[in-house]
Amino acid sequence: MMNGDKVMKEVEGYTYIEGGVCAASGFTASGLHCGLNSDPNKNDLCLLYSERPCVTAAVYTTNKVKGAPIVVTKRNLAKTGGMAQAVIANSKNANTCNADGEEKAQRMCELAAAALGIKPEEVVVASTGVIGQILPIEPIEAHVEELAKKLSREGNLQAVNAIMTTDTVKKEVAVLFEIGGVPCRLGGMAKGSGMIHPNMATTLNFITTDAAVSQSMLQKALDEIVKVTYNCLSIDGDTSTNDMVCVMANGLAGNPVIDKEDEAYACFKQALYLVMMNLTRMLAKDGEGATRLITCTVAGATTTDMAVAVAKSVIRSPLIKCMVFGKDANWGRVLCAIGYAEADFDINRMDVDVESAAGKIAVCRGNAVILPFSEEEAAKLLEEDEICINVNLNQGDVRATAWGCDLTYDYVKINGDYRS
Amino acid sequence: MMNGDKVMKEVEGYTYIEGGVCAASGFTASGLHCGLNSDPNKNDLCLLYSERPCVTAAVYTTNKVKGAPIVVTKRNLAKTGGMAQAVIANSKNANTCNADGEEKAQRMCELAAAALGIKPEEVVVASTGVIGQILPIEPIEAHVEELAKKLSREGNLQAVNAIMTTDTVKKEVAVLFEIGGVPCRLGGMAKGSGMIHPNMATTLNFITTDAAVSQSMLQKALDEIVKVTYNCLSIDGDTSTNDMVCVMANGLAGNPVIDKEDEAYACFKQALYLVMMNLTRMLAKDGEGATRLITCTVAGATTTDMAVAVAKSVIRSPLIKCMVFGKDANWGRVLCAIGYAEADFDINRMDVDVESAAGKIAVCRGNAVILPFSEEEAAKLLEEDEICINVNLNQGDVRATAWGCDLTYDYVKINGDYRS
Repeated sequence: MMNGDKVMKEVEGYTYIEGGVCAASGFTASGLHCGLNSDPNKNDLCLLYSERPCVTAAVYTTNKVKGAPIVVTKRNLAKTGGMAQAVIANSKNANTCNADGEEKAQRMCELAAAALGIKPEEVVVASTGVIGQILPIEPIEAHVEELAKKLSREGNLQAVNAIMTTDTVKKEVAVLFEIGGVPCRLGGMAKGSGMIHPNMATTLNFITTDAAVSQSMLQKALDEIVKVTYNCLSIDGDTSTNDMVCVMANGLAGNPVIDKEDEAYACFKQALYLVMMNLTRMLAKDGEGATRLITCTVAGATTTDMAVAVAKSVIRSPLIKCMVFGKDANWGRVLCAIGYAEADFDINRMDVDVESAAGKIAVCRGNAVILPFSEEEAAKLLEEDEICINVNLNQGDVRATAWGCDLTYDYVKINGDYRS
Repeated sequence: MMNGDKVMKEVEGYTYIEGGVCAASGFTASGLHCGLNSDPNKNDLCLLYSERPCVTAAVYTTNKVKGAPIVVTKRNLAKTGGMAQAVIANSKNANTCNADGEEKAQRMCELAAAALGIKPEEVVVASTGVIGQILPIEPIEAHVEELAKKLSREGNLQAVNAIMTTDTVKKEVAVLFEIGGVPCRLGGMAKGSGMIHPNMATTLNFITTDAAVSQSMLQKALDEIVKVTYNCLSIDGDTSTNDMVCVMANGLAGNPVIDKEDEAYACFKQALYLVMMNLTRMLAKDGEGATRLITCTVAGATTTDMAVAVAKSVIRSPLIKCMVFGKDANWGRVLCAIGYAEADFDINRMDVDVESAAGKIAVCRGNAVILPFSEEEAAKLLEEDEICINVNLNQGDVRATAWGCDLTYDYVKINGDYRS
């Protein structure tokens, strides 16, 4: 551990620290209200900068309709061979499905580059918000200089505020860990609340690290971890047009460059997992209108695909989501959602438990039969903030977790009138 | 047209008539309150009977957790080679995920058979309602005799009432048509409101006809029509454990038996389509908590699978469902849902329109760009009861329609406390 790292907690060699995207050496950030949002107290534009060019890996939405910023970012990273030095991002307007979208996204890169003294193609650009409305570029033009001047090691909170849309809490996580005795840091910020669903990284996620990693190993680690974190998250089953997760590694920690699947890679990947998994949990818990986090862990599967399919099937069931909101122990819906998971397994061998801080109820012990239970105990259990549905398929030794939230009146309210 | 048929309207040689499952010659039905439901004014048990054994075809849920009645019905039809003479069905309890489920379902067949003087394996049994609660068999035992005595040509309304759960309207349709100059009738009833999603026929659907059809051609027609009707319906994305559609043909119309894909088969299949398509629309419109019907027609696809995938993707998007509920012209969500449809097509060639009785708005004309529109006009358009989203992919000449409904506060309310 180094001076200046603000420790939160330590877990098996990984120490949670403060600082989000500015936790890693050499990264600064800033955010401000440029005027896209009608609320003057809400930031809507941010900048993230590394004093040294970064090896950069990214994963994008699988939606055929791709936001213009996604198209431009992809093009930029292709030009630079996966190197970037800054991110510019705005909320309130997704700059998607507009005739002038690419032109505006490109302009954002040029503005950021000019203010930072780098090339436009070294900038990652991202937008989130309403689709199909022309992005007013003037408020951005008028504020990029100020944004560059405001860059600081404490700017992470201003930046994370700027990417929030219907989010109710800021989402950032950072860890400190060692690679061969060299302290490294990896931190991230995320935004997302609705229109969140696999496949893909969910809405906007920016991750920074001072560890030295080759581009191919960084992309490999990201691809692997996305699969078991963001891709196991479902808020509402809608896959957005603007989803992006991008990891930037500037190498300032000074560790020997990770360029193969060795112990250092495993150690780095675990740091990436911890940050992305915690961001995933935060995204799930802050789903639009959500009152509780639902996690489903599936063990005893023969493959990761099987475990993920079953866990996601449970998480995305609107009936289970309503059941958790209504605190109604309608366990049949859980068995039903497991039953329609797109995976090939024997439904008659599984054990199912529902668990929370208030206790645990055995729902099923084989034969797809629901066991008798105490309604009183179930009601108490369902009062808690986090409800865990644990499934053991008893057919193998692979496990996976998926994260989601309940479906509430507020989800309907928020999405019945999103544009205003 | 024959004496006694109550005509509703005529469409291209098919005349909509009253009578539902009793419209076809030789079918009688009855329904009553046996006591499963706490509301004494709500029927919860029904019987459907044909005076002559029927060639029977069925399609069942694809859920791995299958209701005990599904298991027993399948076994019965396998025993008889697809012949049945009666249906017994109850609501309020799905008789699923219970240790004694099959025994109870079998008992229901025996009770019906004894009362009707037929064999237990000639009975189709179906249950709908809460999963995982033991089915009390006593109320059924006590009322089957009465049910058999009450069988009548006017019993369709009592029967359709008995299969309703959270349904707010009864769903029945019948048509009169001619096969080679011989008048035939085909009618059906359906129940379903939530937990409705492809794949599969949706919840409980019973269809009767007096046309003479071979078992293989009946099953073939059913399989084909399910694909473009019930399987294109989504209320909430949940696939139930008890879904079943069953068609019974008693041949009393006296037409030459349809046993190959000729003109008579096409004519019969169109009757089946009209009845199942209209029931599908009714199911969609009466989705739990729904205030409006949403239909999405996709033209210009290269395959039916492509057209269906795009249409379903639009229909099941919770954000589009909320948008329609909130009357919010957030067209970006429509393009977004088309974009994540699981089909391989060029997103840049499509035209999209949103239409209702109040008018039509051009949303997109290529390049996945949203066109400017009048908010006033859009607000007026979205006031209507039925909202049509029309997509032309401009890539082929295949079309398909999917049906759904909006997502409302009431859906959450109904499903947050379903068991009470």
